[in-house]
Amino acid sequence: MKELHSFAPPTRILMGPGPSDVSPRVLAAMAQPTIGHLDPAFVRMMDELKDLLRATYRTENSMTLPISGPGSIGMETCFANLIEPGDTVVVCQNGVFGGRMKENVVRMGGVPVMVENEWGRAVSAEDLEAALIEHPEASVVAFVHAETSTGALSDAATLAGLARSHGCLTIMDAVTSLGGVPVEIDGWEIDAVYSGTQKCLSVPPGLSPVSFSEKAMDRLRARKTPVQSWFGDLSLLDGYWAAGAKRSYHHTAPVNALYGLHEGLLALQEEGLEAAWARHRENHEALRVGLEGIGIDFVVPVDERLPQLNAVSIPEGVPDADVRGLLLEEFNLEIGAGLGALAGKVWRIGLMGTSSTAGHVELCVKSLSAALSRVSAAQA
Amino acid sequence: MKELHSFAPPTRILMGPGPSDVSPRVLAAMAQPTIGHLDPAFVRMMDELKDLLRATYRTENSMTLPISGPGSIGMETCFANLIEPGDTVVVCQNGVFGGRMKENVVRMGGVPVMVENEWGRAVSAEDLEAALIEHPEASVVAFVHAETSTGALSDAATLAGLARSHGCLTIMDAVTSLGGVPVEIDGWEIDAVYSGTQKCLSVPPGLSPVSFSEKAMDRLRARKTPVQSWFGDLSLLDGYWAAGAKRSYHHTAPVNALYGLHEGLLALQEEGLEAAWARHRENHEALRVGLEGIGIDFVVPVDERLPQLNAVSIPEGVPDADVRGLLLEEFNLEIGAGLGALAGKVWRIGLMGTSSTAGHVELCVKSLSAALSRVSAAQA
Repeated sequence: MKELHSFAPPTRILMGPGPSDVSPRVLAAMAQPTIGHLDPAFVRMMDELKDLLRATYRTENSMTLPISGPGSIGMETCFANLIEPGDTVVVCQNGVFGGRMKENVVRMGGVPVMVENEWGRAVSAEDLEAALIEHPEASVVAFVHAETSTGALSDAATLAGLARSHGCLTIMDAVTSLGGVPVEIDGWEIDAVYSGTQKCLSVPPGLSPVSFSEKAMDRLRARKTPVQSWFGDLSLLDGYWAAGAKRSYHHTAPVNALYGLHEGLLALQEEGLEAAWARHRENHEALRVGLEGIGIDFVVPVDERLPQLNAVSIPEGVPDADVRGLLLEEFNLEIGAGLGALAGKVWRIGLMGTSSTAGHVELCVKSLSAALSRVSAAQA
Repeated sequence: MKELHSFAPPTRILMGPGPSDVSPRVLAAMAQPTIGHLDPAFVRMMDELKDLLRATYRTENSMTLPISGPGSIGMETCFANLIEPGDTVVVCQNGVFGGRMKENVVRMGGVPVMVENEWGRAVSAEDLEAALIEHPEASVVAFVHAETSTGALSDAATLAGLARSHGCLTIMDAVTSLGGVPVEIDGWEIDAVYSGTQKCLSVPPGLSPVSFSEKAMDRLRARKTPVQSWFGDLSLLDGYWAAGAKRSYHHTAPVNALYGLHEGLLALQEEGLEAAWARHRENHEALRVGLEGIGIDFVVPVDERLPQLNAVSIPEGVPDADVRGLLLEEFNLEIGAGLGALAGKVWRIGLMGTSSTAGHVELCVKSLSAALSRVSAAQA
């Protein structure tokens, strides 16, 4: 093995699709000494974390906790618990992550019915309704609230209402929406939701907050087959996260990562959810003005745009990777590449959580303008 | 919601079954600014991490990487990839974690054949051989190298050799062994192994290093059914951890946790694996002398004992929880309770990684002696 040294990351400004910039207070919280995951002090913090997550998700759901893994494990937890082999699941796809939902359905032995939407557009309620009429056997509807791959925001209240009126539970991906735009789990009657920490919560990646309604828990309790994942079986996780003496060992929680999530959620509550949503919207407006000023257009129609994730078209003839490379090397600025069908066609500019400030907007517009000039001069 | 504040953990000395004490250098590494998981600097660190893990596992296996979740997800990854519905799996159980392996087999649709051993003893090679003779259809043998629930060390080389001679792949749990006693993945020809970070590596919990042999990868490639877990499908994870330009997006890696693992593995290499094993053995000997001096006996026969996890019998009439509570409250010292069949009967005293020092041994013996006197005075 070659000689290795401690890793010293470069200082970056994170304006991609996540992770977003993590505040010094969250980093400091994570660097506190590790204590035991069964320590009474730690157990009290776990209880507070559940309260903080409930407040962030706007829910009273008892089953609200952070899964000890990234958002993809949170996704898998939702599908593993609510789907049994043979179940029909309507999956709305308007980007990469709907496709991942389909994969989850298939791996659980379920039968996916795909509602395919144009990438860069919100999920179509009409198309969902048509699929539900055509498939009365469906038991679950799954959709992505905020498509990280395209920057489109869907109307969760309407989609969940349609699912409910057709007797289906809803699984919602709130990875990029939570903390950046309104997420109302109880208000919209969402049955299962997962998110990530590295987007608008501005906590390092690695945890996936989830929440399940009582209807979802009833479905779980009525299963005829065991949940395919021991780790993700909510009935066992519930015991681990239970308050006080009822607590039972399940796995070893990621202690320091949870310190960070506690601090990040606390910071969000101190700012106020509504204030955070307004901040995301304001900075998005400023970015829009700035980018349009240098001839950059948005992919998503104006009333379906996510304020925290801005997909913009790469101007004709501009070399995608060169510009992103320049931004990273010269300005220490990370923006995101396109994903899936949009690879090479769009950039994804994040204004998430701690990365949603007027300073980030200004830096991005200036740097991108400079990089485009540089690249175009090199091409001339 | 009641008013919440930043969480400030008490300072503890961790001598339970994990987490162990985390060094300031690892905590500091984790508190470095988060960068993007696709940043070229981060990708270089991921490559180094794979090299460090290979050195720690003593393997050349290409498929060696940290799963983005705790040891239980590492366990699930091994079973999910190597077992198809209907496969017969011989599971050696000599404690709690063999039972969890059985659960994993069942959830993957496999048929477990249990080799039940006495808790507190090593796995019996004779019993395993008998089971293999009785079940020629078996395709996998699974065992726990170091049983965290009992402190027993099994003879991995012999068990893996038996499995091989009967045409089976081996899955080994090295959660508590890695870094504390010899683990020789290539030398013993282990096909799949998982570990945790919070034991003898002294990195906070939340990651699970795994390694898979070429034979295991061949088995995976020959599967007739998809891996039940999208997240855990090694063929996809392999793409994410591939070097350089071949890398493909899978999930968002837990950036800061990986900083910590990199630093912890580096520290272990700096000390040298053999030196670390010797240190664990020496401190175990000192603890044995100290505890026997105050009338505390070990559960496991001397030649099957783990140096890093010491299961000792709770003396007759001594109230388990009171003593552990006193140790925690008065001495800030955490030791572990018994688990499963050993609950209330044993304490588990860890001397793992950074917690394996002469100072820890002295503190433990003195504090335990004082606590026992205090409790016995209260009872009198």
